[in-house]
Amino acid sequence: MAPLTYLCTLPLPDSWFAELASRLPHVDIHRVEAGAPVDPELLARVDLLHTSAWFPAASLVPALRCVQLDTSGVDHVRVTDLWGTGIPIATLGGIAPVPMAEYAMMSILQLAHRGPLIAQYVEQRQWPSNAERLERLTPYPLPGSTVTIVGYGRIGREISRLATAFGMHVIGVSRSGAPAASDHKFDTGRLAHGEDRAEIVGRDGLTDALRRADFVVVVVPLTAETAGLIGPAELDLLKPGAFLVNIARGGIVDEAAALERLRDGRIGGIAVDVFDEEPLPADSVWWTEPGVVMTPHVAGLAPQYHAQTLDLVVENLRRLEDGRPLLNEVDRDAGY
Amino acid sequence: MAPLTYLCTLPLPDSWFAELASRLPHVDIHRVEAGAPVDPELLARVDLLHTSAWFPAASLVPALRCVQLDTSGVDHVRVTDLWGTGIPIATLGGIAPVPMAEYAMMSILQLAHRGPLIAQYVEQRQWPSNAERLERLTPYPLPGSTVTIVGYGRIGREISRLATAFGMHVIGVSRSGAPAASDHKFDTGRLAHGEDRAEIVGRDGLTDALRRADFVVVVVPLTAETAGLIGPAELDLLKPGAFLVNIARGGIVDEAAALERLRDGRIGGIAVDVFDEEPLPADSVWWTEPGVVMTPHVAGLAPQYHAQTLDLVVENLRRLEDGRPLLNEVDRDAGY
Repeated sequence: MAPLTYLCTLPLPDSWFAELASRLPHVDIHRVEAGAPVDPELLARVDLLHTSAWFPAASLVPALRCVQLDTSGVDHVRVTDLWGTGIPIATLGGIAPVPMAEYAMMSILQLAHRGPLIAQYVEQRQWPSNAERLERLTPYPLPGSTVTIVGYGRIGREISRLATAFGMHVIGVSRSGAPAASDHKFDTGRLAHGEDRAEIVGRDGLTDALRRADFVVVVVPLTAETAGLIGPAELDLLKPGAFLVNIARGGIVDEAAALERLRDGRIGGIAVDVFDEEPLPADSVWWTEPGVVMTPHVAGLAPQYHAQTLDLVVENLRRLEDGRPLLNEVDRDAGY
Repeated sequence: MAPLTYLCTLPLPDSWFAELASRLPHVDIHRVEAGAPVDPELLARVDLLHTSAWFPAASLVPALRCVQLDTSGVDHVRVTDLWGTGIPIATLGGIAPVPMAEYAMMSILQLAHRGPLIAQYVEQRQWPSNAERLERLTPYPLPGSTVTIVGYGRIGREISRLATAFGMHVIGVSRSGAPAASDHKFDTGRLAHGEDRAEIVGRDGLTDALRRADFVVVVVPLTAETAGLIGPAELDLLKPGAFLVNIARGGIVDEAAALERLRDGRIGGIAVDVFDEEPLPADSVWWTEPGVVMTPHVAGLAPQYHAQTLDLVVENLRRLEDGRPLLNEVDRDAGY
């Protein structure tokens, strides 16, 4: 059998490629800058394309057997020529759950502990009075509160495990109403100890789950089914003063509706990492809106990214060699 | 037996006093504004004084059998006339561990997830590039990291339980080298599920515990023994880039030494809620120092404060009636 041809468009360090070559010496390894011209003869024999946002026309990659993405989401691939082919697409899923769940838990804590309000005191260099402490800055109690996690995959389950440690009740809303199957999913083995005591409901349980929530964490992939999932009607189901954490993708939560309800006090606070328009324009209100903890799409950044990416690519190249199903293969019908 | 006389100097709501009266109808309940004149005849027969920072001369309170504080720390009582007497002093200990541990965990997460650096991007309305994300904003990995908790009482143990859920290794440094005894300590019953797998060491293990730490959380009470405990020499034991969380009291961590090591990069980031001088002066560098997450002494604020305070006061009044040892009685030799 001819050696596999691997082409990477990502700016990974030389040491990464050296390690790949040492672990798979028989693979024909190539790298190119995303968007730079590629020898058509090389492109024509690529088996695995490792890329983030550069996708050649399907006709140029007749040998392609795997698109290995650098993202967990695939919403940006659906508009490309490759989506309509049968070529398997594999995500980076499994690398981000730990840091994303940490990020979600940090957001819950920042909202509960009045982070946006305290930031205003700090900005004005104002030491709060004892009355202000008691009346405005006392935290919202986490033990006994309910967090509804919209999207109960690997990230959602890890958030659930952490929230349980804080004494929160968890409602996980998943497409199927059952914990996601973990076959053929990349597992870094880095999840920590602890129990997941979540109550799992299907998409038809969303209404009830939103009504009962003190905190809502949105972490579904962006698909045709989830676009606009949390709109005005869904936000109106929330208890007065409920908190919203959005670490999914822009387009799932209605930004204007959320902002309106934050400003009139129906929503108690918002932590948001993703936006309809990215990069977020410099004149966006989200940079400075009171009541908001905002970050510029960083929740998915993962420590040990290089080592974990290497493990995943090595595993998928081996699976290609053996003709086994890929890790993290996208289900095009489900859309993620 | 004559009914107990209770005097409160705290601005608690009328409903609080009504509830106290309904639970203990035989107690003679009085309230006064802190510092306002009190009828000397009343003061002379007070059994339990419930106060925050107002302490009468010992000669004026001959019947006093309990000073019930509104704080967990007692450092401000040591300078009063009452400290030198044998009158039992009870703290508010036990009410703050849950929110303080949440606060400490939030601080660890904010430092690990590059909060201070991300805040600079947000302040400048600047969307980070992909290279900046990878090189500067990727979080520090919590799983497998070590947090050293200096002060392993009720708050420290609760921090430990949470940190364990995040996959961190915990070293608890306590005065005795053993978990604190929990007899005669107020327990709100609100601690959540989970394991404490900490390695507990005594004060003589501090040097080694600081050397091994990725994160240090300082949560000891301020006593003669702990004043200046984390000075230049101790800070120099830390690994390059280690993170510091200070939620104890001003006077324990050397502020100038910590700042110097933050500025030259030896310390990776500081989260601080307590200061040598409080209220913090408007011209203090701590309000705006890069690399710092600062809050104005709010970490100890507790939800359900009124209900929990009521439970504690009722219990200590009952113990006075029965002649049993008080809950949360201060050990004057230990200093807390």
